[in-house]
Order: sequence, then structure tokens, then C-alpha cells
Amino acid sequence: MINKAIYPGSFDPITLGHIDIIKRAKNLTKELVIGVLYNANKSNYWFSVEERIELIKESLIEAGISLENIKIISFNGLLVDLIEKENIDLLIRGLRAVSDYEYEVQLNLTNELLAKKKFETIFLNASRKYLYLSSSVVKEVCINNGELKFFVTDNVRKKMEDRVRKINGKAK
Amino acid sequence: MINKAIYPGSFDPITLGHIDIIKRAKNLTKELVIGVLYNANKSNYWFSVEERIELIKESLIEAGISLENIKIISFNGLLVDLIEKENIDLLIRGLRAVSDYEYEVQLNLTNELLAKKKFETIFLNASRKYLYLSSSVVKEVCINNGELKFFVTDNVRKKMEDRVRKINGKAK
Amino acid sequence: MINKAIYPGSFDPITLGHIDIIKRAKNLTKELVIGVLYNANKSNYWFSVEERIELIKESLIEAGISLENIKIISFNGLLVDLIEKENIDLLIRGLRAVSDYEYEVQLNLTNELLAKKKFETIFLNASRKYLYLSSSVVKEVCINNGELKFFVTDNVRKKMEDRVRKINGKAK
Amino acid sequence: MINKAIYPGSFDPITLGHIDIIKRAKNLTKELVIGVLYNANKSNYWFSVEERIELIKESLIEAGISLENIKIISFNGLLVDLIEKENIDLLIRGLRAVSDYEYEVQLNLTNELLAKKKFETIFLNASRKYLYLSSSVVKEVCINNGELKFFVTDNVRKKMEDRVRKINGKAK
Amino acid sequence: MINKAIYPGSFDPITLGHIDIIKRAKNLTKELVIGVLYNANKSNYWFSVEERIELIKESLIEAGISLENIKIISFNGLLVDLIEKENIDLLIRGLRAVSDYEYEVQLNLTNELLAKKKFETIFLNASRKYLYLSSSVVKEVCINNGELKFFVTDNVRKKMEDRVRKINGKAK
Amino acid sequence: MINKAIYPGSFDPITLGHIDIIKRAKNLTKELVIGVLYNANKSNYWFSVEERIELIKESLIEAGISLENIKIISFNGLLVDLIEKENIDLLIRGLRAVSDYEYEVQLNLTNELLAKKKFETIFLNASRKYLYLSSSVVKEVCINNGELKFFVTDNVRKKMEDRVRKINGKAK
Repeated sequence: MINKAIYPGSFDPITLGHIDIIKRAKNLTKELVIGVLYNANKSNYWFSVEERIELIKESLIEAGISLENIKIISFNGLLVDLIEKENIDLLIRGLRAVSDYEYEVQLNLTNELLAKKKFETIFLNASRKYLYLSSSVVKEVCINNGELKFFVTDNVRKKMEDRVRKINGKAK
Repeated sequence: MINKAIYPGSFDPITLGHIDIIKRAKNLTKELVIGVLYNANKSNYWFSVEERIELIKESLIEAGISLENIKIISFNGLLVDLIEKENIDLLIRGLRAVSDYEYEVQLNLTNELLAKKKFETIFLNASRKYLYLSSSVVKEVCINNGELKFFVTDNVRKKMEDRVRKINGKAK
Repeated sequence: MINKAIYPGSFDPITLGHIDIIKRAKNLTKELVIGVLYNANKSNYWFSVEERIELIKESLIEAGISLENIKIISFNGLLVDLIEKENIDLLIRGLRAVSDYEYEVQLNLTNELLAKKKFETIFLNASRKYLYLSSSVVKEVCINNGELKFFVTDNVRKKMEDRVRKINGKAK
Repeated sequence: MINKAIYPGSFDPITLGHIDIIKRAKNLTKELVIGVLYNANKSNYWFSVEERIELIKESLIEAGISLENIKIISFNGLLVDLIEKENIDLLIRGLRAVSDYEYEVQLNLTNELLAKKKFETIFLNASRKYLYLSSSVVKEVCINNGELKFFVTDNVRKKMEDRVRKINGKAK
Repeated sequence: MINKAIYPGSFDPITLGHIDIIKRAKNLTKELVIGVLYNANKSNYWFSVEERIELIKESLIEAGISLENIKIISFNGLLVDLIEKENIDLLIRGLRAVSDYEYEVQLNLTNELLAKKKFETIFLNASRKYLYLSSSVVKEVCINNGELKFFVTDNVRKKMEDRVRKINGKAK
Repeated sequence: MINKAIYPGSFDPITLGHIDIIKRAKNLTKELVIGVLYNANKSNYWFSVEERIELIKESLIEAGISLENIKIISFNGLLVDLIEKENIDLLIRGLRAVSDYEYEVQLNLTNELLAKKKFETIFLNASRKYLYLSSSVVKEVCINNGELKFFVTDNVRKKMEDRVRKINGKAK
């Protein structure tokens, strides 16, 4: 049986699509680890890893999801190493488009080779409401002053709008 | 937490790819139901639903998988109705090719509308060894006297070869 | 400018997805021809071409769509011949899955070669609510006594249920 | 009926594939707006937005397409905002590869949520001659001194070659 | 080095797309075997295997392709068995759509397991003119009295039209 | 018959997947040219073109592949120009995912237009063991201190680990 599952991602920032997956993933395991990736070589994050963790917490609370069996941690390096260190049984991945799926097959086959500890990988399909929703679409909409309420929680919306205002202020 | 999961299919006949999924699916739930579909309008099955159930049992034993928390049943009609009747929490689907995936998204969205009881759907990716393996490929190989040992258990292999011999005998 | 457009299909039977496309297609042309294909070599239609035309009319009225600039005709043979005969400017096709799209590209390139009269082809994407909806999914649901209201109008639902009852009656 | 349609893009620079779509799109509407996107955050355009508009005009004239019912404007921000401001009825998108199509479905579903004014979206398939042709392929060919006449009009070809010569001159 | 290659298929009937591949395949090998599959379980062929072989010969001659290093044979059973029996080095497959490709990967992985004799598999892409052309499209066009000259040689066109005339005659 | 074939790529660095293709490609031609691309506009290579050529040589020797009929050269510019200059008959491309394939079709159609000298293009499918393996996956694994032995030869592994150590040393 599954004791500990991980749902990894950049969460830059967390979207309603992510929240939907987290809500459903919670039912599949005793403890759900949300792994927030920070890649030292990537400099174009909107939010620091600490901010992203904070936004996840706030968003889950806003969405009425108890944080009781949820642990939010940051990580870098290989996912298979985190899985070994944290003694995780189950890797949970959200699936959207067909092109996503091919990338996941590649990742899966690579993990099959690299894994030191056995774990299972499952895919959850985005619900109809959140099909094809991604953090990058949300950022694109935000930069162009579009309505964010369909995509993120209220607190994420505010932080994103703040960020764009600040950048635009600097740009003047 | 997941008490009861279902892995549905035609299993005409069960392949090593199916067995791989069953082995992994067992770890995700207290009880695993293997649902064997018989479609009254489909007449080109190789094996009757009773034979297919028998082959699943024999194959799992041959593969060293305990039947303890496994229940094998036949069903017709809508999967969502079986899920309600059996009080199932989790639907498990194997994924192979990209084209499979699109069909699954369609099924998923349809089930979202039809479901009377809430349940989760997860996808397990075929392992590298069984990528793209399907019952229809196996039948094609068998008809043409190809080697079946890469695809099915020993007992399934024998039953398939028997069946082809009988048909060829009749054809003379 | 577009005077006459065609939306062809089997419509066996018309679904809410088709109705959505028709509603939107009406705005793109002065006259919309709904072309109902009957293929003499195909014997597994649920409804005769006359019944299918009747169901389209009833469904559009039920959906509050005026039939004023709509003409419903049956056809067999090549679509490009119908387009020439009816002097049509625009071919309208609904798009669902990625795999649909490839088939449409093939059709498009074939029509480019066969067309005697120039016409334009456009694709309309299914709305979120009707993504991946198809007549064959609806028939599958109906055979298995599933709820049809998400997929078809009330009158189509009744005709489909009648048909299944009759067949099941005969089967006894 | 359609009064005003938009065909948006970067057009950096306009290709024969774009011209083919514009020629066909003109027949679908009273007025066709060609919307040239400038994204303030993107710095690797080959041509400024003013140059790109100029190249479109010159190319359409070279291709014998009257500019009478064509309006060429630049825009930034969300397309749905431009559509509202310009009171546009129809969004026209060219389709090439299967992978394009998935991106378009995503865009479509996002626009469905963001749109303040109702409009229709249609897809035109590239003609056989221009299948898979893109501005980035053309730029790649140009950098490597390949023959451009299959991909762009004469005046675009000259401007592209000028640009590469200047850069190479500087590089020495 | 490659001494003997095979290009297998149903060739029911041979199209201009097949001829294009054969012309190009001839340059890759000393001897090219065209393997014409007859599947005893498939009854809806338009032409017998003898007729199909005859049509290939006539079409190649009509297309000006020398039959000198070409051998046309019929086969049933597994392709890997034919490859062993004929001592073939190279399997040549034509590729059209993306969905074709997935099927080919499946076939390839299956052959990797079944092959008794080592051989190489290569894919040739259809030329732009024959992209997405298939025997089934051609048959569909023929049944509906469409122009066949874009798809097949003259002699195949005649045989196809004869066949349709005969069937329609019988049907009266 | 094929005298001279080319297998082009960045080889930054060569993987076991590349080596598998080279081994198989050698059998298809008298002389195999491995064309190592250096793109002056791309600055994020891990290894210089000279290092990459050196790594290819060392890896082929380590894998027991004779360099006798292999010629390794660097090139920039259009592939079709190299093909003309080197008088090459055959272009060999490895294929992995479905999304790869679409890109290859685009390349193929572009080359069809640009080629001054006729040549054939063939695709080889990755073997099961190397399905979906790519240089970028290998680099990602290396940066994160993952095990490289499944993906590259010993000497490449050492050079990659050296490089990461140096960069990390500098970063301190």
C-alpha cells in the first residue's frame, strides 16, 4: 500500500489545475509530498522557491484543502534521488496534452534506469475545466493584463499582478 | 485512501503487459478487481469470458502473483455502472502509444459526465519491455505461427496454439 | 464573400457537438447546407438517411436554432461532386482530437486534387463542453443504458432508446 | 455574417505560406485585419514591427493581392483585447503540423474563457505547397545562404539577405 | 552492404505513392523484393494476389521502371519468416502520417523480438506529391466515380473502373 | 547503389543511442560520413566541435566499431550544401518520438526544395534499449550527478563529469 507519494513541479506559480490534482492525489496516499523544484541554472522564475511554497500553502487553504497530510518541500537534483531520500512509494504526474504524454514516457523510461529505490509512477488526467492549463499560459495572460480568476486562486492572482506592476514601474 | 480498484479490459487473452500492470496495480489498493468485459455485440473473441477468467488466474499463478487480494469478475454494460455497483474507488488504465492516450482522454471526459459515484482514474505506463504490446499483436503472431513466449505466459501460449490448430484443422 | 457553406457528416444521430458547430457555422455564411451522407456500402447505420434528416430538424428546433437559412440534404458519392453541383463556396469541418486532424489533412490534400470547383475548407474546434464527443460514443452509452442527456437532444434520446428497446425485444 | 476578421502573427518575415492564407482569408470576410504582434519582452526579431508591416504590404502587392479590404496593424497584449477593441467577428489561424494543432486547442480554450466579445475561430490548413513552412525555417535557410525563392517573395528575400550580410560584415 | 531488400505491402492496388517508394528503394540495394501479402482471413481485397502482382508489373513498366533487379512474390505468414527464408538484409517501409509512425514503432519492436535472422529496417518518407496517399483513399475515390489519374497508373485506373462497373452491374 | 552516406548531428556528446545508429548505418553504405554540426550562433555547447569529434572516435573504438569506412567531419551551413560538396547519396536520420517525426517531415520537405544534388533520406528507429534517449537528457542527468553508464560510453562519462566538476568548482 502507498504511504508516501510525491507530486513534483516548478509551481511558478501554482494554478487551479495543480490544486485539482493535489486534491485528488491526497486520496491516493497517507502522506503527500509536494516537491518544488529549483533549478540553479534557470534564472527566469517569477517567484523564488520560498515564495512558491508560500503560494502553494495559501492557495490550498483558500481552496479549502487541509494541509494535514501534505508536506511541501523544495528540491533540486534528480527526482529519483529525492524519492530515495524521502522514501517515497509513488510518483504522481498530471497529464494534459498529447505532447506532454510523450515527454512523460521519456522521463519514465529514464527513471526506470536511474531509480535506486523502486517506486510506482501514475498519471492523473486534468479535469475538463483545467484541460491544457499551464503556469506559462497564466503568466502570458498576466503580463498582458488579462483576467486571472479562471486560472489561479485569489492570492496568487494578487502576487502575480503585484509582480507585473513592479516590473512595469521599473521599466519606466 | 484506496480500498478497491478496478483494472478493466477484454483480456482476450491476458498478455505479459497486462500481468505487469496487475502486479504494480496490486500495490496501490487493498483489493484489486480485474473486470473482464464481454460485449454481447462482439462475436470475434478468441476465448469465452469464462476461459479468459481462467487464463488470467492461471497466468497470475504462473507469474508468481498471489490471488489473495484479487477478485476477477466479468461484466458488460457501462464501466461507471460496475464501479457504482462494486463500490470502487479507483479506475486503473494501462497506457501504451500516444494514440491510446487520446482515446483515454475521451473516455475520461465521458466518464466525468456519466459517473454516479465519484472515483479516481489513474494511468500506468507500460514498462520498457512491454511497450506497445497488445492482445491483437499477440493474436496476429499466433495465427502466423510466430514465437509467443515474449508476449504471454506458457499456459496462454498453449491455449492459443490449440485454438489455431483446431481452426486450421476445421479449415481443411 | 461566402454565400453557401456545407457541413457534411453521417449524423447517425446528430449530437449536441454537431448542434454547437451548426449554430456557429450559420454565422459564417448566407446559406448553410447540412449534407447527410448515406454510404450504400455501409449497413450498420442506426437510422435511415430520412430519419437522420428528421432528427436534425427536430434537434435544431429543440435547440432554438432557426431553420431559415439552413438546407438539409442527403448525398452519396464524393463531397467535391456535391460541392460542384450545389455551387458551394465553403466546406466546414468540426475538429476534435489530434488524430482527427491528421485524417482531415489527408482529406484536404485529396480534395485539393479532385475539386472541379474552387472552394475553401475551414475547421471549427469543438467547444470545451463537447470536446471529444462523437456519435459512436453516444451509441455505445445508449446500448449500455447510460444517461444520454449530456450528449443529445431530448427527441434524439427518445429515438435512440426506442431503437435499443426494439432490438433487445427482438433478441429475446 | 462576417464583417471583420483578423489574421494575427509575428510575420518576421511574411512567407509564401502566410500569403496563401491571406489570399484565402480575404474571401471569408468584408474586411481582413492583419495583426502584427510585437512582444516587448522578445528581443530576437529580425525585423522591427514597422519593417514587418512594410514587408507584408510589399509582398501582397508583389503577389498581386489587392490591399483594398485589408488593414495591417501592429498590436501587443492579449489577442482577445484587440478583438474587442477592433470589433472583430472572426479569428483566422493557419494550421500546419499536428503539434501546431494541440497548441491551437490550448489557445482556443483559453480564449473561450478570456473573451469579452464573442467571436468565432476558424483554422485554415496550409496548401500542399506550403505544408510545414514557417518563418523560422526560412530564417535558418537564409543564415546558411540557402535559396529563399521557394519560401518568400522577392522583396522579402532581398531584405533578409541584406540583413545577413550586414550582420556578417559586423562580425568580421 | 545491402544485397537484398524487401518492400512488403498489400498493394490492393499499387498507387503512385508505392511506385515512388519502389523507384527510390531500388537504389538502396542490389535486389529488391516486392512482397505482396495475402491474408487468408481477409476477404475484402479488391484484387486477387495474382492480379495485384500483375498490376505491379504493368505499373512499373508504365512508369518506366526496369524490372531487372526487382522480384515480385506473394507471401502470407510473418514477415520475419519471409525475411529469413529469402535471406533478406533490409526491410523498407514507407511512412506517411504521424499515426502511421506509431504503428511502425510497434511493428519494429515486435520484429526485434521475433527475428531469427538479423536485418535492418528503414523508413522512407512519402514525397510531397504523395503525402497521405493510400490504397484505401484511392478505392473510396473510385467507388464514387472520382478522377483516379492523380493516384494510380493508367492500367490500374482501368482495372479499378472495370471492377466497380461489374459490381454495379451485378447490383442492379 | 549507395557509396557514401551521412549521419549528421550535434553529438554534444555522442550517446549509446547514436552509437547504435552508427553501427547499423555502417552496413548500409561503403563509406559513412559522421557530420558534426557547429552552429556559430549557438553558444551553449558543452564540448567544442574538436572535442566532440574526439569523443566520437574514442566512443566508437570503446564500442568495438572499426573506424575503417567512417569519416568524421565538422560542418556548418546547410546540410544540402555539405551533401553536394561531399557527393553524398544517402542521408541517415535516427527517429525517436512521434514529435521528432513531424520535425523530420518538415526538414524532408524543405530539403526536397533546396537540394542541388539528388540524394535519398532514410530513417532508422531507435532500438528498444535506446528509445527516447537524447543528449539533452544525458546532460540533465549529469548536472544532477546521476548515473551515466546507461547512456554514454566510459570515456564520454568521464569527460562529462570532469566538465561538471570544473563548472561547480568555478561556481564556488
